[in-house]
Amino acid sequence: MTLKEIPGSIVAPLGFLAGGVFCDIKKLGTGKGSNKGQKRDLALIVSETPATVAGMFTTNQVCAAPVKVCVERMKQGMAQVVVVNSGNANACTGKQGMADAREMVSFSEKTLALSPGRALVGSTGRIGVTMPMDHIRAGILEAAMELGCTTAHADRATEAIMTSDTQPKQVAVEFKLGGRTVRIGGICKGAGMIQPGMSATGARPAALPGGRPQGLHATMLGFITTDAAVERKVLQAMLEAAVANSFNRITVDGDMSTNDTVLVLANGLAANKKFGLNSPAGKIFQAALTHVCLELAKKIVRDGEGVHRVVTVRVNGARTIQDADAAARAVANSALVKTSWHGGDPNWGRIIDAIGYSPATVVEEKIDIGYAAPGAKKILWSLRRGQPTKATFKQLCAAVAPPEFELHINLNLGRANAVMYAADLTEEYVDFNKGDVGDPGSLGG
Amino acid sequence: MTLKEIPGSIVAPLGFLAGGVFCDIKKLGTGKGSNKGQKRDLALIVSETPATVAGMFTTNQVCAAPVKVCVERMKQGMAQVVVVNSGNANACTGKQGMADAREMVSFSEKTLALSPGRALVGSTGRIGVTMPMDHIRAGILEAAMELGCTTAHADRATEAIMTSDTQPKQVAVEFKLGGRTVRIGGICKGAGMIQPGMSATGARPAALPGGRPQGLHATMLGFITTDAAVERKVLQAMLEAAVANSFNRITVDGDMSTNDTVLVLANGLAANKKFGLNSPAGKIFQAALTHVCLELAKKIVRDGEGVHRVVTVRVNGARTIQDADAAARAVANSALVKTSWHGGDPNWGRIIDAIGYSPATVVEEKIDIGYAAPGAKKILWSLRRGQPTKATFKQLCAAVAPPEFELHINLNLGRANAVMYAADLTEEYVDFNKGDVGDPGSLGG
Repeated sequence: MTLKEIPGSIVAPLGFLAGGVFCDIKKLGTGKGSNKGQKRDLALIVSETPATVAGMFTTNQVCAAPVKVCVERMKQGMAQVVVVNSGNANACTGKQGMADAREMVSFSEKTLALSPGRALVGSTGRIGVTMPMDHIRAGILEAAMELGCTTAHADRATEAIMTSDTQPKQVAVEFKLGGRTVRIGGICKGAGMIQPGMSATGARPAALPGGRPQGLHATMLGFITTDAAVERKVLQAMLEAAVANSFNRITVDGDMSTNDTVLVLANGLAANKKFGLNSPAGKIFQAALTHVCLELAKKIVRDGEGVHRVVTVRVNGARTIQDADAAARAVANSALVKTSWHGGDPNWGRIIDAIGYSPATVVEEKIDIGYAAPGAKKILWSLRRGQPTKATFKQLCAAVAPPEFELHINLNLGRANAVMYAADLTEEYVDFNKGDVGDPGSLGG
Repeated sequence: MTLKEIPGSIVAPLGFLAGGVFCDIKKLGTGKGSNKGQKRDLALIVSETPATVAGMFTTNQVCAAPVKVCVERMKQGMAQVVVVNSGNANACTGKQGMADAREMVSFSEKTLALSPGRALVGSTGRIGVTMPMDHIRAGILEAAMELGCTTAHADRATEAIMTSDTQPKQVAVEFKLGGRTVRIGGICKGAGMIQPGMSATGARPAALPGGRPQGLHATMLGFITTDAAVERKVLQAMLEAAVANSFNRITVDGDMSTNDTVLVLANGLAANKKFGLNSPAGKIFQAALTHVCLELAKKIVRDGEGVHRVVTVRVNGARTIQDADAAARAVANSALVKTSWHGGDPNWGRIIDAIGYSPATVVEEKIDIGYAAPGAKKILWSLRRGQPTKATFKQLCAAVAPPEFELHINLNLGRANAVMYAADLTEEYVDFNKGDVGDPGSLGG
């Protein structure tokens, strides 16, 4: 399969339109008409024709109203517009929050003259503050007027979903599927409260051996569009597989948000033949979808709050996948390991400590710990079978000095593997998140 | 029961001696004889007569040699000396580490002319570096020469076990037991890699409903002495109960060390009548022992690395104790909650988010969140039944401004409760732990 990167993200696939406007959701008070220079805060993503839809949602039991509305609407399996706002998460807002989320979808449907039930919604921002619905309605009307399919339109929608992100996050690919050219595009946002653990219904998976939910902890929002024709059940299964290997494998700070959402809309305008999950075409589509999700997910980690270094934690040789996952998450979320990464300190003592207290079954005398450049095969081992190697401190420091590196952990107990895309913990993260107590709006996630 | 605080910590009980010396365990190179101004790094705690002993040890699967030696020796049930060093954890040191730990106990026994098997050992400091045994032997000889029972001797032993601690941690109490005056004293050290989860054998408890080990993550060392006469099984059961409500309820950074150890020696010189676990005298002794452990544990949190604020997280009304514990630990270890505490930001959104992603079963619409002064009954609620109260932002800021406060979380689902003694996350913590990569000795925990 050859994937070709193309511009345009969510409007690269045929038949998709996007728009993003400033409607002052945080009520900065600049008012309508004076929005020059303000970051946009409301986006619309629209398919010209009804699209098959699949979704993955936070498994946090404290779950925002837009997530609940999306989960309800997933049953219909079709959608045509996604309305997304930043600045207010519409979380912990009770009955009013649910009413507001429902009005966001119904107002979007009416504005775009769509059948009822065709809109989905995503929100990110402050927790516990009710939505400024007059601003939202004005924003939807304005965004609907400005919809278009140029890269500039995608850029505006991308900007509108950002919160603490410093960079827009977009990707699109083009590839062949049964002789037809199809496209998948996506946008997403981070950048704190990031360790998604999403499921198809927002319900927590049955306790794993080891007992934890699959993912433990962002508001991350991801919106993916494709002009491929994909049956709903196939699309959902493929999104679940893609998310399991991408968004659910990242952590910035170990906190799982109330609002994590990934949606994919497939409008079929590429006119490919429909395909089964394990068909040759299915495998190609799965690989492309996973690629888009993983590229987006990694952008979230790289642009995580205060992040200086990105570390791919690879745990191999665990007894079970749950053990591999547990060991990788313990290392990826250890305050002491993350601060050592920040310092460029190849501190294997803290790494093996975290492995040892993780829920995974491990044997100290079997553990290998080493470093590699991203994607490189050559590993510089600092520890083999629980004992320091002859690698010099200088060599190890050089291995952890680059802005991205891979940490290889081999438990040597079995054949199960897991990977986490993780970040360091910096003074900037602390400074950013200690908040400005002069701002009562700092309640946000 | 009246507990009277008295000076002298570990030498306050009858028949105990202590000493602490500098023997250059980190091999700073100042050499013997030039130790003026250097922090002491080797302590001896000695009972004049054989004492009943009980212990609790890290459940980290990567477990240091001194812990393994103590666990082995617990079976004998008697001890007379504890040798403790700082500067080197003797963890991840393989067979040499075990040989060194065994030599530390046997050399201490010979030096003090005790029967074989009467010594126990504790270590804290760097991970993965073998012990400088020539320095250790010299230190043991010197400390044995300087043993005494004055507060100055206890101070020296306390200093010798400190690592990143900025304050010595000591306590002693005196109380009546069946007409006799008895005393319990203790010392301990923190101050990073602190979320102990200790058990009697170092083995992890059977999976709880919720699946996690009871405690998840310090090197914390605690040494307790008493002149009470206590049967070994009773002493072990009482220490387990005391630790469950003290050392195993604290977290600084969520990382559990390879070396966590608490030992209690009871030499019986107070000549009280022996007592059963649930006898009136037993209850008095239990309360006193728990008091000493809790006072010591809280000192660790207050002096945690970079800590500015200490927060007592009280979760009430959970369905099960495991749920209460899980919710309390999720809040106590959330990077976003901890940074908001640092900022004096009463951010209930982050707190309810952490409750929601914890393994505990919770219902958003039932959750109460409020604040109180330490020990105060009056709670200022910020959230009742999932909805913001009328408490003003200014009032809430005032509640979280003091250096210590209590966070009350009521899940309103059952009758189970849990408490965690937690700390904020500050730029100083990050700066301290990002290490000095110029120092290859920064491998330590």
